[in-house]
Amino acid sequence: MFRESRQKDRGNNLRKEVLEIARDSISRVLPDKALAKVLSDHSFRDKIILVSVGKAAWRMAREALEKIPSIEKGVVLTKYGHSPGPLPPLRIFEAGHPIPDENSFRATMDILKMVEDLHPSDTVLFLLSGGGSALFEKPLPGISLDEFNQFTRDLLECGASIVEINTLRKRLSSVKAGRFANHVSPGKMVSVILSDVLGDRIDSIASGPAFPDSTSVADVHRILQKYHLQFSPKIMRYLEEETPKEISNVNTHVIGSVRILCEEALSSALERGFIPDILTTSLDCEAREAGAFIAAIAREKRKIKAAYDPPLALIFGGETVVRVRGKGIGGRNQELALSAAKGISGLDKVVVLSIGSDGTDGPTDAAGAVVDGETLKRLEQKGMDIDALLYDNDSYHALEITGDLIRTGPTGTNVNDLTLLLIG
Amino acid sequence: MFRESRQKDRGNNLRKEVLEIARDSISRVLPDKALAKVLSDHSFRDKIILVSVGKAAWRMAREALEKIPSIEKGVVLTKYGHSPGPLPPLRIFEAGHPIPDENSFRATMDILKMVEDLHPSDTVLFLLSGGGSALFEKPLPGISLDEFNQFTRDLLECGASIVEINTLRKRLSSVKAGRFANHVSPGKMVSVILSDVLGDRIDSIASGPAFPDSTSVADVHRILQKYHLQFSPKIMRYLEEETPKEISNVNTHVIGSVRILCEEALSSALERGFIPDILTTSLDCEAREAGAFIAAIAREKRKIKAAYDPPLALIFGGETVVRVRGKGIGGRNQELALSAAKGISGLDKVVVLSIGSDGTDGPTDAAGAVVDGETLKRLEQKGMDIDALLYDNDSYHALEITGDLIRTGPTGTNVNDLTLLLIG
Repeated sequence: MFRESRQKDRGNNLRKEVLEIARDSISRVLPDKALAKVLSDHSFRDKIILVSVGKAAWRMAREALEKIPSIEKGVVLTKYGHSPGPLPPLRIFEAGHPIPDENSFRATMDILKMVEDLHPSDTVLFLLSGGGSALFEKPLPGISLDEFNQFTRDLLECGASIVEINTLRKRLSSVKAGRFANHVSPGKMVSVILSDVLGDRIDSIASGPAFPDSTSVADVHRILQKYHLQFSPKIMRYLEEETPKEISNVNTHVIGSVRILCEEALSSALERGFIPDILTTSLDCEAREAGAFIAAIAREKRKIKAAYDPPLALIFGGETVVRVRGKGIGGRNQELALSAAKGISGLDKVVVLSIGSDGTDGPTDAAGAVVDGETLKRLEQKGMDIDALLYDNDSYHALEITGDLIRTGPTGTNVNDLTLLLIG
Repeated sequence: MFRESRQKDRGNNLRKEVLEIARDSISRVLPDKALAKVLSDHSFRDKIILVSVGKAAWRMAREALEKIPSIEKGVVLTKYGHSPGPLPPLRIFEAGHPIPDENSFRATMDILKMVEDLHPSDTVLFLLSGGGSALFEKPLPGISLDEFNQFTRDLLECGASIVEINTLRKRLSSVKAGRFANHVSPGKMVSVILSDVLGDRIDSIASGPAFPDSTSVADVHRILQKYHLQFSPKIMRYLEEETPKEISNVNTHVIGSVRILCEEALSSALERGFIPDILTTSLDCEAREAGAFIAAIAREKRKIKAAYDPPLALIFGGETVVRVRGKGIGGRNQELALSAAKGISGLDKVVVLSIGSDGTDGPTDAAGAVVDGETLKRLEQKGMDIDALLYDNDSYHALEITGDLIRTGPTGTNVNDLTLLLIG
């Protein structure tokens, strides 16, 4: 009896439940709370230096200062416009993103100077968030900013992928690929990472300043051959140098990532009586095709699910891409949702939610959208054609009309996107 | 011990096993066997008339003749070039596909004449396969072939979808939308369907000659309004006529469909010790994006699967589409597989197979392909660039080089495509 009445409730409340699961999971990957938890598990002794780098650097640094008043000095290095005010005793730098500029180099040199001559009992608390790759950068001696950025342009022009570019470029850096950890040695490091990179490759988050590098000189040779690349003798010599493969002075914590986001969604769905499954944490295909694929899964699961089976929650994390063809407004989560709305049209007790964990989706004021089997009908009742809207990349206006947009404002975290499919 | 050695075997044999699962499932949806089974379950009395329509009409009719020698007369109506020889006592017609021509109409009139004045104890054995929509057609009195085809062109030009076109067009037909069953009444029908339509909508297979129609005159009004359509008074009168909603003289069997294909794959995988799951039977997005999505699932399942967990078999049925940009050769299954190969590169004990159940994939001599974590490496070792090949839609040459093509020749059935992801 309880079960049945519960099922009935769920039918009406599926939209409410999917929003709650999304809200729960995002709130559980807010850096403040998770950072506080990591810090409370550590006992910091002697000198503590704080180095906070990335788009969330300011907020993470403020949290650390509150939790560890004994922090002696440190640096916050973030993107222009991303530091709301002073955080004494820290020095605050703003620099170029996504292309490093002189300020990136200056701030990075300042950080390197600060961690010179540490003792084994000293600790660098290193807080890293998205954007750190460009912000935290200083080329090895003899390479200028111009040379460094030209090197990147050469690689982009030859068609190398971002992974290939990073494999080469980190070898010209004095802080990437584990080298920052070497600078800090014999001091200790506690590294706390809020990741917006898919696939759990810690050494690829900001090219891993404090993590053993997984690429080798053999990879370098392969890439140089593939694109027939030649550089100056100075650069070639650096490219031939092997990166640190063992690092023993660093304790690493990932406090937020799209995987953790998905795992929190799984817990939240489980607590609500759903049978949850994480199908992927690295979704990277086109947004509208992902929506069509998820709708195809929805149709199958809807069809085979009996009324007395527990409800399902399928979880997808990642970062889809929008192929821009039209002049409309939208974001990857809204486009995925609109496309899914077409594919689940007419289905009972099915909802699809897609949301950017930072609370923004494309150049819109929405974070994403939640659609159901009636979304298409609502759109058509207003005389709108879903195919035309999708073709014009105008998911924002479509979902505004159907009342399916989600607006959260900035959430305070950034660990990529969450997509949920519930079958009630 | 047994389990471990089995796992080891499976690592080496995953390609072999996925090919066997595909072979098993396709062989279990061959129309001959399944048709024989259905026929042996029926007791046919008195007069039996055979009407076999579609691309597989000839082969299905031959099987029926063998199993039921008491078939008195009948018609085979198939596409030009699809009848290898006479099948006495049947009359054989070939006609236009995908656009009906005079021969379609003549053969359909012949069939209608043959089923006139039946008794309640007479049976029409109706065998329907893909292509039946165009082949089996006769407009209602007063509508010529030209008018009928112009009607279709008008609907295509205004941008109506195939579902919308069929909703209107079946109302001008004397055999679609259940009307053929009405002609046969009070005679009985046994309808045996080999389906190449996604989504189990029996009334949409060849627009359902012997199945209650699920569309209504209200749908017609909606479509006419949507596209601001006007037709001659004669046509408008026919459009306003409701189609049969109840049909009581027909016994329907679906002997093959992509759903049955997927269910057979599930059985076969289960027999081999895999934990199988059908994720969809109506995959309809872009082929390369589907490949990327399936690879994203593979990465997740590979990562979380412990060595002692049983192996997984994820099953996807449907019909993806290829967005043609380049000048290469390939098919939707090959393009899906090549794209998946990129996404699963480097993964251990992961294979993706995609195959057309009819044994052909695009304008190639391959039925599909099977790729693994080494496919990309094999391609790069030959100096090939996967992104360039994908961009050029040249999946056939890429997978020829890597040795990953599957060649089966015509399988004798046609129930759309099967895609399998195995995690060993």
